[in-house]
Amino acid sequence: MSTAFSDESDGSGYDAGHDAGHEASVVELPRLEPIPDLSIRTLGPARITSPMATLLDATRTTEHYISENDRVLLDDTLARISSRGVPAGELPGLEPCGPRRKIFFDPAKTRAAIVTCGGLCPGLNDVIAGLVRTLTYHYRVRRVVGIRNGYQGFVPGYGHDVVDLTPESVRDIATDGGTVLGTSRGPQDPEEIVDCLEQLHVNVLFVVGGDGSMRGAMKIARTLEERGLRIAVVGIPKTIDNDIPYIDQSFGFQTAFSLASDAIRAAQVEAKSTANGIGLVKLMGRHSGFIACYAALARSGADAVLIPEVPFALDGEQGLLAHLRRRVSERGHAVVVVAEGAGQELIGEPDDAARDASGNAKLRDIGPWLRRRIGDHFSDAGIETSIRYIDPSYAIRSVPANPYDSVYCVRLSQAAVHAAMSGRTEMVVGRYRRRFVHIPMSVAVSRRNQVDPHGDLWLAVLESTGQPVRFA
Amino acid sequence: MSTAFSDESDGSGYDAGHDAGHEASVVELPRLEPIPDLSIRTLGPARITSPMATLLDATRTTEHYISENDRVLLDDTLARISSRGVPAGELPGLEPCGPRRKIFFDPAKTRAAIVTCGGLCPGLNDVIAGLVRTLTYHYRVRRVVGIRNGYQGFVPGYGHDVVDLTPESVRDIATDGGTVLGTSRGPQDPEEIVDCLEQLHVNVLFVVGGDGSMRGAMKIARTLEERGLRIAVVGIPKTIDNDIPYIDQSFGFQTAFSLASDAIRAAQVEAKSTANGIGLVKLMGRHSGFIACYAALARSGADAVLIPEVPFALDGEQGLLAHLRRRVSERGHAVVVVAEGAGQELIGEPDDAARDASGNAKLRDIGPWLRRRIGDHFSDAGIETSIRYIDPSYAIRSVPANPYDSVYCVRLSQAAVHAAMSGRTEMVVGRYRRRFVHIPMSVAVSRRNQVDPHGDLWLAVLESTGQPVRFA
Amino acid sequence: MSTAFSDESDGSGYDAGHDAGHEASVVELPRLEPIPDLSIRTLGPARITSPMATLLDATRTTEHYISENDRVLLDDTLARISSRGVPAGELPGLEPCGPRRKIFFDPAKTRAAIVTCGGLCPGLNDVIAGLVRTLTYHYRVRRVVGIRNGYQGFVPGYGHDVVDLTPESVRDIATDGGTVLGTSRGPQDPEEIVDCLEQLHVNVLFVVGGDGSMRGAMKIARTLEERGLRIAVVGIPKTIDNDIPYIDQSFGFQTAFSLASDAIRAAQVEAKSTANGIGLVKLMGRHSGFIACYAALARSGADAVLIPEVPFALDGEQGLLAHLRRRVSERGHAVVVVAEGAGQELIGEPDDAARDASGNAKLRDIGPWLRRRIGDHFSDAGIETSIRYIDPSYAIRSVPANPYDSVYCVRLSQAAVHAAMSGRTEMVVGRYRRRFVHIPMSVAVSRRNQVDPHGDLWLAVLESTGQPVRFA
Amino acid sequence: MSTAFSDESDGSGYDAGHDAGHEASVVELPRLEPIPDLSIRTLGPARITSPMATLLDATRTTEHYISENDRVLLDDTLARISSRGVPAGELPGLEPCGPRRKIFFDPAKTRAAIVTCGGLCPGLNDVIAGLVRTLTYHYRVRRVVGIRNGYQGFVPGYGHDVVDLTPESVRDIATDGGTVLGTSRGPQDPEEIVDCLEQLHVNVLFVVGGDGSMRGAMKIARTLEERGLRIAVVGIPKTIDNDIPYIDQSFGFQTAFSLASDAIRAAQVEAKSTANGIGLVKLMGRHSGFIACYAALARSGADAVLIPEVPFALDGEQGLLAHLRRRVSERGHAVVVVAEGAGQELIGEPDDAARDASGNAKLRDIGPWLRRRIGDHFSDAGIETSIRYIDPSYAIRSVPANPYDSVYCVRLSQAAVHAAMSGRTEMVVGRYRRRFVHIPMSVAVSRRNQVDPHGDLWLAVLESTGQPVRFA
Repeated sequence: MSTAFSDESDGSGYDAGHDAGHEASVVELPRLEPIPDLSIRTLGPARITSPMATLLDATRTTEHYISENDRVLLDDTLARISSRGVPAGELPGLEPCGPRRKIFFDPAKTRAAIVTCGGLCPGLNDVIAGLVRTLTYHYRVRRVVGIRNGYQGFVPGYGHDVVDLTPESVRDIATDGGTVLGTSRGPQDPEEIVDCLEQLHVNVLFVVGGDGSMRGAMKIARTLEERGLRIAVVGIPKTIDNDIPYIDQSFGFQTAFSLASDAIRAAQVEAKSTANGIGLVKLMGRHSGFIACYAALARSGADAVLIPEVPFALDGEQGLLAHLRRRVSERGHAVVVVAEGAGQELIGEPDDAARDASGNAKLRDIGPWLRRRIGDHFSDAGIETSIRYIDPSYAIRSVPANPYDSVYCVRLSQAAVHAAMSGRTEMVVGRYRRRFVHIPMSVAVSRRNQVDPHGDLWLAVLESTGQPVRFA
Repeated sequence: MSTAFSDESDGSGYDAGHDAGHEASVVELPRLEPIPDLSIRTLGPARITSPMATLLDATRTTEHYISENDRVLLDDTLARISSRGVPAGELPGLEPCGPRRKIFFDPAKTRAAIVTCGGLCPGLNDVIAGLVRTLTYHYRVRRVVGIRNGYQGFVPGYGHDVVDLTPESVRDIATDGGTVLGTSRGPQDPEEIVDCLEQLHVNVLFVVGGDGSMRGAMKIARTLEERGLRIAVVGIPKTIDNDIPYIDQSFGFQTAFSLASDAIRAAQVEAKSTANGIGLVKLMGRHSGFIACYAALARSGADAVLIPEVPFALDGEQGLLAHLRRRVSERGHAVVVVAEGAGQELIGEPDDAARDASGNAKLRDIGPWLRRRIGDHFSDAGIETSIRYIDPSYAIRSVPANPYDSVYCVRLSQAAVHAAMSGRTEMVVGRYRRRFVHIPMSVAVSRRNQVDPHGDLWLAVLESTGQPVRFA
Repeated sequence: MSTAFSDESDGSGYDAGHDAGHEASVVELPRLEPIPDLSIRTLGPARITSPMATLLDATRTTEHYISENDRVLLDDTLARISSRGVPAGELPGLEPCGPRRKIFFDPAKTRAAIVTCGGLCPGLNDVIAGLVRTLTYHYRVRRVVGIRNGYQGFVPGYGHDVVDLTPESVRDIATDGGTVLGTSRGPQDPEEIVDCLEQLHVNVLFVVGGDGSMRGAMKIARTLEERGLRIAVVGIPKTIDNDIPYIDQSFGFQTAFSLASDAIRAAQVEAKSTANGIGLVKLMGRHSGFIACYAALARSGADAVLIPEVPFALDGEQGLLAHLRRRVSERGHAVVVVAEGAGQELIGEPDDAARDASGNAKLRDIGPWLRRRIGDHFSDAGIETSIRYIDPSYAIRSVPANPYDSVYCVRLSQAAVHAAMSGRTEMVVGRYRRRFVHIPMSVAVSRRNQVDPHGDLWLAVLESTGQPVRFA
Repeated sequence: MSTAFSDESDGSGYDAGHDAGHEASVVELPRLEPIPDLSIRTLGPARITSPMATLLDATRTTEHYISENDRVLLDDTLARISSRGVPAGELPGLEPCGPRRKIFFDPAKTRAAIVTCGGLCPGLNDVIAGLVRTLTYHYRVRRVVGIRNGYQGFVPGYGHDVVDLTPESVRDIATDGGTVLGTSRGPQDPEEIVDCLEQLHVNVLFVVGGDGSMRGAMKIARTLEERGLRIAVVGIPKTIDNDIPYIDQSFGFQTAFSLASDAIRAAQVEAKSTANGIGLVKLMGRHSGFIACYAALARSGADAVLIPEVPFALDGEQGLLAHLRRRVSERGHAVVVVAEGAGQELIGEPDDAARDASGNAKLRDIGPWLRRRIGDHFSDAGIETSIRYIDPSYAIRSVPANPYDSVYCVRLSQAAVHAAMSGRTEMVVGRYRRRFVHIPMSVAVSRRNQVDPHGDLWLAVLESTGQPVRFA
């Protein structure tokens, strides 16, 4: 017989079918962030029948397909929509991606350009190949060019550097990592870029890049508007750190954290192989600890995960060092995963002047610093240990996309082409709650996506590592 | 200057910020499927303070965390909620997963059992390990047992076969595929199973299995109810075909389609290596073609994808064979991806008597049949070809989970433990639009998730292969 | 104290430094195979100073470098050379590979052609790329062409099909499997091939293929000789089955058996996951069981390995079936690995007429036959079992080479170019006891390399599986 | 017609079958290293019939199996054996591995111990599992123990730390990297170790470790001899750097260089992705550059390989920096592979006092130093560049063995057990020119295996990178 349930329960029956048994079911209404302007700019009315119209005739509105005039709700819970205080029909929503029956650009006269900017990320070549294939096969666009080495390729100072892209030339590029177009960091003069676009007779520009590059793309779009040029600028947001808001997961992220979990595995193997061994892994994540969290969840062995979003203390009984000492004593070894942006406040005063070409503040290197502090602590405690420090760095971002990310890149690039051909501009494509949507560039760069210290991802990490809610 | 846009456009300015330019913006209201009963059965009031309550005290309701009394909306578009015709507060929703502050079972007195049923799927060992770890580390449950070889392990006819499971014994199991508990197909007598649960003093039973196993679990739950036993039965739904409704993606699916894409790659390499070469790959998918669709999207080379959801014709100018002949003529080779359940109607009359131990109708083997038909067609057309047929079969389902699926399994198993400890029963855990939710078992087995021929996944496949909307 | 040694030992001391303690040290002299003619044909005296001469000036004869006039001994044991009965200076040896200071062909006037024939094998693209790079970068040969689709590309009936090959065009080809040149089976008229070579002004032909292709190459070489044309024909032997004599291991073999071991792993996982489960894996190996042996050694789980070299009986107490029944009874599951050429004599009379385009006798399919026989046996014995049959087939031969095989292919292609430029012809390159050597084509096709049932590889397999010396 | 051969050739016919056409065929006799004492110590006469004798009865001496009284020739070329100046029957040779018909230890009374020492290397767990399986299944040895954490586990100061090893406990260990026994660096007192061996009643000790550990094992063997204890000490040599003499390739080496080639791939992808990009990869190799050479050969993209065996200059027209500048100018990017032990003489005076626990001199870190020097050089030359530095370090040595290395480990461990059971001691097992042989420990530690700057491996690297014979 089964006897584990609460002694206090009266056993009077089942509460099947309702949840009255839950206490205090007053739902606390969440404080919601203000709604940004989610409307999408277009270059003008779409009057040309799309070559894909026939394909669309076969589609019907279903739960798996959103009509082009429908909207994807921003909110997904009862409490959230109740908090909005507006009628259901006025709830905020995002425009869905997908081919339109009527388009703005005449494919026969369209020229497209592609540029990749910023650091490498798995999937860049998949995106390039996907854009070229969709433009060529589905819209019969006759000329697609690639701009070499990021925004530099647009400007005379670096020499215009442009290559023709065809389905044949991009056929096998996705088997290797990186970007066949090359990349660079930092902005270039939007006026010069627009000059170049005019010279090349480009009507549609695809920018694959991070938030810095999207800010650059917005300047291009505004310059185009000022000059009265109807050139669409559509972004495919790239960030290996997964820090773009309103996007479920950025492309390349799964590939990246998979490789990062190999580094944790290596650290764990090393740590377990020596008496009192400690493995320390530094992973990417300047402002957002997603890679560290997911990689740690993918391997069950981490004893502590440190991310930029959650400050931590080293010393004291509730600090990281004491936690590690207890783990080494209990299990014979310990593994720490640290995101590069974590613990910056512990290392020293920020040096505001130190920035890279993209304008990102240079981080202090948490890895060697933490290694030294852990080593000193165990040494002071008279415990012989050996610390293995692993920094997989560039090895993670230069690999080809895994099959999941390949599929995701293909679908993003299809969506971006549909958006651009329909005349939409100054927007990026993304996936929001598993729906592909259009997001205004201004919204995509308005803030960072971060691990919520009160969300269920971090809760899952805490459950998995058994570390305290906060090292304090 | 840029001249590709519609000649009809008057050039009078920009429609920035609104989409009035879109034609006919009357949104067609979707016909919605009826709302099933989404309420979750509980064994009784939750009166015991959870050992995780402290952890929860730190959490606050945010956009990344759903309060336990909130609900995840079933609908996610404006048109869908408008069609419901109910006030916002009464829209249908699913209960969110997660730890509760108050629970039903006293962990110190709880015994848990785990059983894995049906065919193999990547991630089974991750789920087992995750359940054991969460029960032991977070709830301090002292005894977890595994039932060997599926439901067979419960019944005297096969000999009760039970093993103790501890964090130590499951530490490394996820590095290999399969299930350390073993599995079997087919139902067993629920009375015998409940007898066994009583003998083992089990309070909480976790069933990892497909829809057949969930139907079995429902019978167990009802037998328990009839006997007045308060034992929770919680399912973690397993299906490599991704055919469970209300679940974004089933665990192991990403691992499976990644391997499947390797088979497509092999077929493509073979096809390209000989003059007029044809590669034919049969993939899993009895009723749902998700693996075929995703695997084909992950590799750019497939010329046709055939799935159970979309009937196809072989002959005629619009048929598959003519399409292949055109592709071979244009590109020198062709690749076909076929889901095992596709084209059954073409092969012959269904044999209703032929069923496997799980009660699934035995499929006719589309692979060799299609190979023969393609061979005959080219031979009749006087074209020398060579056909390479690849059937990766078991090689796909027996591998360890990839890091993404590992994370997903960990989170599902955490969610399942929280649900069971809170006294919920006859339900499964799943992820719906990226939220982990509770789904009544009756709902999870009520229908199959299938590729929507009018949805955007199939549209992406059509765009990628360039095959016609229908081979007719 | 340590007491395990033989009671009979007198304990009188140690036999350090000699092995007089071994019984009967009369070495049985091995019966040696007759020595084939190992001399290498050349097209004429080498009078041109090689562009690599400077590089060679820096080399000195050492234990890691063999002077071009030295020979690699055919024999490697005392007993073998003693059995030869000739003075040490007359022992049979193979000519070493490597660049020569003087060469026959003037690089500035040389045109090279490459053809790949027969079935796919990992590494073909590495060989093509290696040949092109060595010819171009080191000899400054200005034109290298690839013949498409094997010997077919030479003959008018299929349309001459020739592509230019440059370091740029072959840069990334090795990231994918197969052969960018395409391939075909079967011979073509040597007269037509030589006509084509003359038309193309080719001086040096590289043939990458199996023994059938090498026989074809010999016919080409003889036709060239009859016509008085000084064109070098150099082979890089390809056989995924590792069945070429005088060659340690054929290129692609390691990649192939690595993948094959994954299939064994899958079979083992499946077998262990069900009560009395049996996994059956069919691997490549028409005449030689190397892939089966190595793949089984790489995974510790096989219970029986069946290869063409060792006949086996199914029935009787010493037969395979009884062995499997015992293993299932002891361990709960069993795994069988069978090479495709094993057990042919059991299935039925050979059908001499059935041959493929390469002239290979068509094998009867041992896999399904064995599956049925095992199933019947267990069924007759009243044991419920489930058999998982895995045939990885084409999936193994179409993958890219692993890094080891890549290195091997690079070195073979370098060796082949050096041989050809020096005017050698009608020979293949290979590695013999870890030395790269020249082998006359006639010798390379004179017999097959097979697993020696009395050699140490098979002994290691017997030790690993614990199967009897012979199923009889 | 074919016209590329030497104009000087008289065309009078073919030199088929001989090589008179080669100039100056006087073979320079190589200067041979002196022959070490290759005889193997035994503990006494082997008088017990091996349980494997039946298996051996089936074997016959063939070209693939060496009789136990035969010897593997040290020399393998005509010139080498001619230089020896001794009759063929007296040529130096190594004792072959393999089971003996008569053995020294009575399996029923034998206890075996296994210890793993030094740094991690792929394959350690395969060796442990292989030893346990061969001892248990083939010799029916009843007790095998593992010593924890290297030699430390033997001594009281660290607490004796011993675990029982059974086929069941080692069944799945090879799926993970590292060593389940743990490891440590540095020697321990041989007297204490021998005390421990006596207490444990061990008759056979297997030491898996590098040259330091083998020196330790020799001291143990001598202490045993002094005390008159007949305990066999057999080594399985471990070195990820492949620097053991008389051994073709050390276990784990292939796995290691495969991963190292991934790092080169990453560096190449990064370098190609930016204008004038430079990739710099530091690989393992304190004294021997094998990993750097093989990894570079496995990827075609390296522009320079730097190894400890070949000094290099940075500056001047023939120096590394000028070479890189030329490559960047020609190809747009460059990749440098450097072994950790290369260029030490450039960085500064050696610090004799700096040694790690194993007694290895601490190396100066060539990686960051070279990165800085390259950066300064390009900066001085006014060339904007970006340098990506990758140091895969621990990530390489902690992975599981690949299938090739797994097979190799299985065969080494089988050989080690056969040697020990036959009473051999103070020796290691290895593979020499593809034959498994016994090598006296004194010989195995007598010198290092290094890349021969005049050998064909380095020649292949030079051919592949196109770098000059020496940067001078």
